[in-house]
Amino acid sequence: MKFLGNEMITVEDGILKIDGYNATELAKEYGTPLYVMSESQIVKNFTRYVEAFKEYTEKTGKEFIVGYAYKANSNLAITRLLSKLGCGADVVSGGELYTAKLSNVPSEKIVFNGNCKTKDEIIMGIEANIRSFNVDSISELILINETAKEMGKVANVAFRINPNVNPKTHPKISTGLKKNKFGLDVESGIAMKAIKMAKDMENVNIVGVHCHIGSQLTDITPFIEETRKVMDFVVELKKEGIKIKDVNLGGGLGIPYDKNTEIPTQKDLANAIINTMMEYKDKIELPNLILEPGRSLVATAGVLLGKVHHIKETPVAKWIMVDAGMNDMMRPAMYDAYHEITPCIIRNENKKEVVNIAGGLCESSDVFGKDRELPKIEVNDIVAILDVGAYGISMANNYNARGRPRMILTSEKGVYIIRERETYADLLSKDIVPNYLL
Amino acid sequence: MKFLGNEMITVEDGILKIDGYNATELAKEYGTPLYVMSESQIVKNFTRYVEAFKEYTEKTGKEFIVGYAYKANSNLAITRLLSKLGCGADVVSGGELYTAKLSNVPSEKIVFNGNCKTKDEIIMGIEANIRSFNVDSISELILINETAKEMGKVANVAFRINPNVNPKTHPKISTGLKKNKFGLDVESGIAMKAIKMAKDMENVNIVGVHCHIGSQLTDITPFIEETRKVMDFVVELKKEGIKIKDVNLGGGLGIPYDKNTEIPTQKDLANAIINTMMEYKDKIELPNLILEPGRSLVATAGVLLGKVHHIKETPVAKWIMVDAGMNDMMRPAMYDAYHEITPCIIRNENKKEVVNIAGGLCESSDVFGKDRELPKIEVNDIVAILDVGAYGISMANNYNARGRPRMILTSEKGVYIIRERETYADLLSKDIVPNYLL
Repeated sequence: MKFLGNEMITVEDGILKIDGYNATELAKEYGTPLYVMSESQIVKNFTRYVEAFKEYTEKTGKEFIVGYAYKANSNLAITRLLSKLGCGADVVSGGELYTAKLSNVPSEKIVFNGNCKTKDEIIMGIEANIRSFNVDSISELILINETAKEMGKVANVAFRINPNVNPKTHPKISTGLKKNKFGLDVESGIAMKAIKMAKDMENVNIVGVHCHIGSQLTDITPFIEETRKVMDFVVELKKEGIKIKDVNLGGGLGIPYDKNTEIPTQKDLANAIINTMMEYKDKIELPNLILEPGRSLVATAGVLLGKVHHIKETPVAKWIMVDAGMNDMMRPAMYDAYHEITPCIIRNENKKEVVNIAGGLCESSDVFGKDRELPKIEVNDIVAILDVGAYGISMANNYNARGRPRMILTSEKGVYIIRERETYADLLSKDIVPNYLL
Repeated sequence: MKFLGNEMITVEDGILKIDGYNATELAKEYGTPLYVMSESQIVKNFTRYVEAFKEYTEKTGKEFIVGYAYKANSNLAITRLLSKLGCGADVVSGGELYTAKLSNVPSEKIVFNGNCKTKDEIIMGIEANIRSFNVDSISELILINETAKEMGKVANVAFRINPNVNPKTHPKISTGLKKNKFGLDVESGIAMKAIKMAKDMENVNIVGVHCHIGSQLTDITPFIEETRKVMDFVVELKKEGIKIKDVNLGGGLGIPYDKNTEIPTQKDLANAIINTMMEYKDKIELPNLILEPGRSLVATAGVLLGKVHHIKETPVAKWIMVDAGMNDMMRPAMYDAYHEITPCIIRNENKKEVVNIAGGLCESSDVFGKDRELPKIEVNDIVAILDVGAYGISMANNYNARGRPRMILTSEKGVYIIRERETYADLLSKDIVPNYLL
């Protein structure tokens, strides 16, 4: 069995191990459903970005910053781990900014994205003196300027442009098309209009241009197209006397959910972006480069373990019922996403059967995998769902009154609980019953 | 403007009111995003079931029980309100059973559904002496019998059959097709085999047959087909000497999300089911009748209020950016669901414009409505998203590190906070940072 991208997984004598720990034993000790995050894999994924892009700094003398997209997984142990490695933060809410500050991310490595920043969030960002608000609308620009003025400060702003580039990914996570809600349109001149407005404002400081075209991109070409559109715009701005210090190309590099398809690496992405950026070296002073990867930093590092409680044969299928469910990991139900699934005890690699793996919720979309050819699975076995480190716990919920799962971190130093399991009482902890209903 | 099914909503002089309370004022006082649940509407919806089905009790002398599908919205104030009205509980997890007990639902009105009941949950159900476990597989039947034996008790069991009826609804919430994960197949004899097994078991007591074909059904015909398949099976069981006390036909009645379409009422459902049941009165002693409505009890009673923070014009659309988001209410992103949207101040009913209403999350699927023709909306206005009382807060999550919203109950007695807003600190309350990452 090949687990492309999941370097922390090994199989020895039919026993699946994560960072050397027997997955079945982890499930027994910490209970199921259980998220397991691999420190070694996160470190590898982050280091590959740094290594791949150091050439940009060498060639230009400019900074390269990774702003981890907190939306992928903002567990505090994960964000602190990345911060310790030197990683910055792409935040999209007050809650994520709060988490970034608690993770000791330096102000100059925090960027604030999103299409509906509230005044409270803008105040937080100005107080934190973040590297930039990535402005999504003229309305927001005006609010930032007014708020900064009230605070007697100057806010750093970059402008999120909508380049109308097709990222060739799932429509729900495609963000850089004209029809999407994000960004300032370039072609029609709205982006230029916004930046010229900013130039005349007293309480904003123009620092950059930002762009993000989508998530889970498996083709490198859209990144090249995006880079060109951004850099062409930066050249236009220069003509208007506006110097851009930072270019932020967002995130979006995909990961190999399906182990049969190889997809571009951080190195491929770096080659494409750096080569494209260098085409502009004679036209402008090249800017600092910021990227906002999320999925490609943490997805492959995460495994969701579920225990098989029932097996049912129907006239059309064999169903493996596990105690993990769509509330723990929404991606299959939400995006029809494919995730590799494997039993943690592989009895006979050569004797497989076709099964469906279902979660425990009362909803037909709560199915993790259909028609999977897997080694024989028995009741009480542990099943591993791979590549759930991103958009797993961050989208988890309490549907069907199920507590969200425990999460552990496997590291060289040992195994650590990094998120506690929710109890039945936790589920009701925010509910209040009026007196007359007591 | 017509709000079919939302009888608690009135519009007076362009001011939208919920149970007589000015929605804009509620938003100001309790903050946004804000869920508002109407007590009067829930009472109306429940009473209509009772009224519509009392004919069944009159004709047969048997019980009629509404087991509210807790998955729709298991806020403790809502479940206690329904319990006080005499409503039972359809639970699908230990968490929901815990909530039903805290809501004082009598044991004889609790049924336990689901395809992956764990041993712990089975123990809870036996201890609570529930009306029935609705058994989903032979594996589960065996576990219930073994567990009851260990406890020195007898567990009540009903059998969820899969009738292979097409409910003509969204595939993610269609549950009674042969390809779905739920139930025991009738045609192939698996259901009969399971019940015969149960007959020979010492620690289970066969009480019923259960079926549920799907959710948000807008046509009455599948219910008739379902009732016939269930009753035919009950007749078959009689021939085998097995008497069925309870027939549970599940839930599924839809609500008019789109106000231009009228859909069947509780009365229509009652007529269809009762007439079909009565066809069997000479063949068998008619059973008690249980239904499990969720959506049709609470959906129309719920409104999500969001504040407009930004308005953006792009070359192709006008975007209204509200502070509610897909994390608060997943249905549009998850099921491409349509929900009516209206400003809470209607400036001029006759002067409309076409807009998109987007939530505040960094994801393209976070859009509540596209191409809606609405009266003019301005920044700081409050926008109401209707029919969110079911599958709203129950699927809400913390994606983008956003706390789940506050929920209030409007009643004749006043306005009550029934769920507190989550804070930034709440979002991290289960996270634990290992020492070496401090």
